[in-house]
Amino acid sequence: MGDDHAMQTEAACSILTIDLTAVTDNWRLLRDRAAPAACAAVVKADAYGLGIDPVAPALADAGCTLFFVATLDEGLRLRGLLPQVEVAVLGGLLPGTAPIFLRDRLIPVLNDLGQVERWRAETAKAGQAAPAILHVDTGMNRLGLDPQETEKLAADPALLEGIEITYVMTHMACPDEPSHPLNAAQLTRFRVALASLPGAKGSLAASSAIFLGPDYHFDLVRPGAALYGVNPTPGAPNPMRQAVRLEGRVLQVRHVDRGEGVGYGATRRCDKPSKIATVATGYADGYLRALSNRGVARIAGHEVPMIGRVSMDLLTFDVTDLPEGLVYPGGLMELLGEGYTPDDAARDAGTIGYEILTSLGSRYARHYIGAGA
Amino acid sequence: MGDDHAMQTEAACSILTIDLTAVTDNWRLLRDRAAPAACAAVVKADAYGLGIDPVAPALADAGCTLFFVATLDEGLRLRGLLPQVEVAVLGGLLPGTAPIFLRDRLIPVLNDLGQVERWRAETAKAGQAAPAILHVDTGMNRLGLDPQETEKLAADPALLEGIEITYVMTHMACPDEPSHPLNAAQLTRFRVALASLPGAKGSLAASSAIFLGPDYHFDLVRPGAALYGVNPTPGAPNPMRQAVRLEGRVLQVRHVDRGEGVGYGATRRCDKPSKIATVATGYADGYLRALSNRGVARIAGHEVPMIGRVSMDLLTFDVTDLPEGLVYPGGLMELLGEGYTPDDAARDAGTIGYEILTSLGSRYARHYIGAGA
Repeated sequence: MGDDHAMQTEAACSILTIDLTAVTDNWRLLRDRAAPAACAAVVKADAYGLGIDPVAPALADAGCTLFFVATLDEGLRLRGLLPQVEVAVLGGLLPGTAPIFLRDRLIPVLNDLGQVERWRAETAKAGQAAPAILHVDTGMNRLGLDPQETEKLAADPALLEGIEITYVMTHMACPDEPSHPLNAAQLTRFRVALASLPGAKGSLAASSAIFLGPDYHFDLVRPGAALYGVNPTPGAPNPMRQAVRLEGRVLQVRHVDRGEGVGYGATRRCDKPSKIATVATGYADGYLRALSNRGVARIAGHEVPMIGRVSMDLLTFDVTDLPEGLVYPGGLMELLGEGYTPDDAARDAGTIGYEILTSLGSRYARHYIGAGA
Repeated sequence: MGDDHAMQTEAACSILTIDLTAVTDNWRLLRDRAAPAACAAVVKADAYGLGIDPVAPALADAGCTLFFVATLDEGLRLRGLLPQVEVAVLGGLLPGTAPIFLRDRLIPVLNDLGQVERWRAETAKAGQAAPAILHVDTGMNRLGLDPQETEKLAADPALLEGIEITYVMTHMACPDEPSHPLNAAQLTRFRVALASLPGAKGSLAASSAIFLGPDYHFDLVRPGAALYGVNPTPGAPNPMRQAVRLEGRVLQVRHVDRGEGVGYGATRRCDKPSKIATVATGYADGYLRALSNRGVARIAGHEVPMIGRVSMDLLTFDVTDLPEGLVYPGGLMELLGEGYTPDDAARDAGTIGYEILTSLGSRYARHYIGAGA
């Protein structure tokens, strides 16, 4: 397809614009806030839905040298993009995968003693020491060594022979609730674990915990969601810049009689003669169906409410009260952005901004703007 | 990457298996049920998340000759896959796109008089008649000509000059609720519209309406969700075969003390010493966060409950009561399948099976089995 062709088909798409400068500005803000701790970047789940291919190089250009991903495949993709940076894989070292980690210089996050043993055996076989991050659980009870396993390691350093522990990390369960008692409990448990492994550098904070204060910073912070504009301090003003803007393509504007229902199940009826705009975005595009009758769109400073259920490929908004001529087939309405953020959509959908971002679909025309785009 | 490499990284992935024979069997069942009406297949949204590249050719091999997609880009993709079949684009004919439709022999679904006029102008320019499907709205109020527009067309056939109307279609709002009064109302309105456009063939039924009986079949039915295993008759036994099986890769099995919380927010506490399996699937993979503390996994005939919130990349299940040795790192647990269907997950998540399917993510190793795989 030529460029002309792409332009023409784009005329039929919804558009997702991703501001790479917002992402790198966010990373710098978090880096400065956490200094003198180092600042990594979490780019798992395709950079939280924004696209790892453009996002990771922009962050590397901004000065980030250590990246976290969730899976081995994500690690391999990132290694292909950025041959020089450090890449840590949170999912850890499953049976059969150690040779790939070693060959591609991926840093496994070791989550249990079996993974420690597996990495030790691999480095022994290769006759070279290799780095790893040790993940100790401090109360999340999801991934990581339990306290008994950590004690075993502390008591027998030979278990770590050939493994260069670059960081000992943990992950917090409730850092977005500053007053939750588990925060202080996890902090204490982490200090105990660190003290039992002399010389190890520590990493505890992801996005929200960076804002719990310097006690939580240790040697390395690992922001993810906040890089992409999610508010790391729910209930307080968002210190981050918004990085995504989603515009839905208007397919049709229709007049609907009083008393008529709109959409599946006719869940909402028009209480007066109404004008409905139908937009080419739906739950197949990651616009969660939980936003049915709740979502909001914006156009030229006006806010319009969704009416009816979210369909697979379509949304319907009540544009009755808009000035004439503002909404027309082929035009765009803002579905996410400064005026209705992923956090706002999450509140209306009963979820968190993270899920709004990772659900962003593949049918949008994606535009990258700003740093390195 | 060589095959060995792929095998090794797959050892770290969750696995999505798609049974193409289930899809084609479902299509044949619906075709037979709707006969003598013709039976199309709706493959929009990447064949409802199952993958249009393998699904559409399998359906074509089974005898399907008319396919519906939502967007122009989906139409172009399908045209590239299957040069000979008929491809109809439900989203319609936005400004600037008519030349592409004509060049690639895509059939626009004309949703308003503006689109009719656009297609008429394009065919006149090209000096050749071209097919289109006319979409009349009968109460969904989402896409399609309103009754006044339909009357205008009926009164002035010149508006359709150069357009070969292969079908007049409408779409139902509540066919999954057989007793909903809107069903009969839409049927009546559709008959009126058809009668006003003499000679036109009709298409009303998608998956559920096929089961409302022959009155709803007209000349063409357009099943989508039912092809992929979603129950078109909610509340009654599912006549369709399940087409997807999702297996989550176990990353870790851990022992958790009584009183400990699991996952973000520590929303669920263990009321006894427990064993938790952490699985490499999360909401970034389309396992909806609304399934937190509600989802179910299966392993070797046992059912285990989710404990804690769905994370971006991880799920946690309470496997305390399972026989020893059944769950281990690197093993698999069934997250969707015969025992816990997309409809079951939808019920637990407060949505519909359609959204469970279209959310299926891109980090799975995808295996296609059955017809043509």
